[in-house]
Amino acid sequence: MKNLEEIGKQALAAKYFLQTLPTLQKNEALKAVADELIIREKELIDANEKDLELGRENRMSEALLDRLTLTHERIAAMSEGLMQVADLDDPLGEVLDRTVRPNGLQITKLRVPFGVIGIIYESRPNVTADAFGLCFKTGNAVILKGGSDALNSNIAIINIIRDTLASKGIIEDAVQLITDTDRNTTLEFMKMNQYMDVLIPRGGAGLIRTVVENSTIPVIETGTGNCHIYIDEDADIMKVIPIVINAKTQRIGVCNACESLVIHENIVDRVLPALGKALIEKGVEIRGDESVRKVLPESVKVTEEDYGCEYLDYIISIKTVSSIEEAINHINHYSTGHSEAIITENDEHAQMFLHKIDSACVYVNASTRFTDGFEFGFGAEIGISTRKLHARGPMGLKELTTYKYNIVGTGQIRQ
Amino acid sequence: MKNLEEIGKQALAAKYFLQTLPTLQKNEALKAVADELIIREKELIDANEKDLELGRENRMSEALLDRLTLTHERIAAMSEGLMQVADLDDPLGEVLDRTVRPNGLQITKLRVPFGVIGIIYESRPNVTADAFGLCFKTGNAVILKGGSDALNSNIAIINIIRDTLASKGIIEDAVQLITDTDRNTTLEFMKMNQYMDVLIPRGGAGLIRTVVENSTIPVIETGTGNCHIYIDEDADIMKVIPIVINAKTQRIGVCNACESLVIHENIVDRVLPALGKALIEKGVEIRGDESVRKVLPESVKVTEEDYGCEYLDYIISIKTVSSIEEAINHINHYSTGHSEAIITENDEHAQMFLHKIDSACVYVNASTRFTDGFEFGFGAEIGISTRKLHARGPMGLKELTTYKYNIVGTGQIRQ
Repeated sequence: MKNLEEIGKQALAAKYFLQTLPTLQKNEALKAVADELIIREKELIDANEKDLELGRENRMSEALLDRLTLTHERIAAMSEGLMQVADLDDPLGEVLDRTVRPNGLQITKLRVPFGVIGIIYESRPNVTADAFGLCFKTGNAVILKGGSDALNSNIAIINIIRDTLASKGIIEDAVQLITDTDRNTTLEFMKMNQYMDVLIPRGGAGLIRTVVENSTIPVIETGTGNCHIYIDEDADIMKVIPIVINAKTQRIGVCNACESLVIHENIVDRVLPALGKALIEKGVEIRGDESVRKVLPESVKVTEEDYGCEYLDYIISIKTVSSIEEAINHINHYSTGHSEAIITENDEHAQMFLHKIDSACVYVNASTRFTDGFEFGFGAEIGISTRKLHARGPMGLKELTTYKYNIVGTGQIRQ
Repeated sequence: MKNLEEIGKQALAAKYFLQTLPTLQKNEALKAVADELIIREKELIDANEKDLELGRENRMSEALLDRLTLTHERIAAMSEGLMQVADLDDPLGEVLDRTVRPNGLQITKLRVPFGVIGIIYESRPNVTADAFGLCFKTGNAVILKGGSDALNSNIAIINIIRDTLASKGIIEDAVQLITDTDRNTTLEFMKMNQYMDVLIPRGGAGLIRTVVENSTIPVIETGTGNCHIYIDEDADIMKVIPIVINAKTQRIGVCNACESLVIHENIVDRVLPALGKALIEKGVEIRGDESVRKVLPESVKVTEEDYGCEYLDYIISIKTVSSIEEAINHINHYSTGHSEAIITENDEHAQMFLHKIDSACVYVNASTRFTDGFEFGFGAEIGISTRKLHARGPMGLKELTTYKYNIVGTGQIRQ
């Protein structure tokens, strides 16, 4: 097994190779990897079976076993994902700004790769191919640290990618996998700022917190969403149930799902009986304050902790407020800065909500489930950033790049 | 003395106030503070005298005492700086992108303040007014942690700013100063990620390393520059001496000064005798490899450590190489990613250097001293970022902002 130092050095070598690799060659390689994943499907299924057996031995939950499983369809989807990335425009080389200064210096600001990206993720093995595709397309070398549960599956995927790159004359170390699953190795990995330009954790709140607390590499935080919907007193009642049911229940375990409702007290009586019924029919447990429980006696008493909780489950908290200002303050206090929505026909309230809510994506009369790179038209997504530095909200290819200034002179010196 | 928790909460309150403060009102407040600094000059001088006395008691070096000193001229410059920031365009509210999706959702990406910025800096008290001005203009609340050497001066400056803000009906906590100079307080400050969106250290390499290693808040690293100039075999000899002397000696202690020369072996004999003489005349000590020392016997033997050193002093390292590729590899290995220049008349070499050097600012035939927000035409500068996340190179007002997505719908739900 290679040590981290060695992996870091090889990534640096790959970075210099990749930053000038022509778009056509990158796209051909991505398509070739997509083909090979299909051709070598049996290898992937066999390796995955080993992980599943270990998982069953360790009494992994059904939900986690399902996330871990590679099927014919999922391998096809992984392959299709790489084909799609190959078809996207290459963001590199874009001129972001160009100026000529009074002294004649020509300054060009242009889009370039980061260099080396580290990605730490949990059990889903499809992230391995996905992360490779996005980093490779943007000219970055990537070092992956996947979950130990998926180790055999990840090794099999990486072998296919590296074999294919080698066959195309491309440096294999464009992608490397850390196979040492020791926790100390992971901590050490987070401190390799001499080799990596950015570290992206993809996974649950625990993983992300560990990375933020320990990393000396700049981190892009992704994916924790305690998303709110505020039902204003001027809401169109016909829009409320479709939006809330969609945001809460269309997919339960995702970061853009709604976890908390805030309702103006003047509309509670008109909206909550039918909405409560609809939620309960979908199997959602309601945790509400006093006013909510008067209307929906079957709801559980909400706690302070509930308001801060990203359930990722069939549970929703509901708070009533007496003004939009109170709603905005409540949301800004408990939100993770991901996505929040207001349902209202009142323009002034809509504008106030858009301006004062401090989240990556703020919606008027739409489901929070739209916070997604594909839904935003980016054609790809590496995650949803809840930080404000560099990238905020859905991150596509451009968000995996940085810029540099090239300055051309004729002998200028500073006065 | 207020505790950090309290300071954090007050900054949050100020953040919501500032994010919607009209440009005109911000500019008026900036100009009023600029005026007050002049009017209350005596207060500043008196407070500064206390710091200087303590400094002399602690046997502070002449150079540091000079940096710490506030004079009539320096206070005027501080005031003038705020006037200039008032005159710059307000970057907030700029629409960065607008799309209408096939489902009718209108997505607007717009420039907004970060929210709360933390700045940790060392002895120069003018940074206090400067940092306030830039953060305030961009709608951010700022928490300052200055050097303990300048505590009395900083308190006096902050009092003038806060008094003026209050007199204009603006929340005083737009700017707060941490007056507790205990090291543990500073460490605790770096971990307040529930209150601050970004932390910017301004100072020497030691301060920046401490912040990078300890902060859980996203950091923008600024200001360490081990800047290189490569003299290509196809250099115009007439350009070499002016550029190198300017980059090395025009101002010694700044991050965009040249610290290391790389020279192609084919041009050593033609260029080094005169260049060495010019450097030595300016009082610069030369540390060179074997080939350099053959031509300049008075030069010191260079070490591995020299190549990695940001001297900020009258010393320069010189290495000879046998190809441009060797030069590029050497520079990418030892550089801090700040600014590097090539002197050449060969277009192919210039392009190779521009593309392969992994630094914020890459120059052809110009002095590295131009890496500066004012020289780039930004009208202001908060620092030079040597990281690739968010901002790279000179940071002006725009680099103190982030963006958000506002999405307006008519009841859309995700399929």
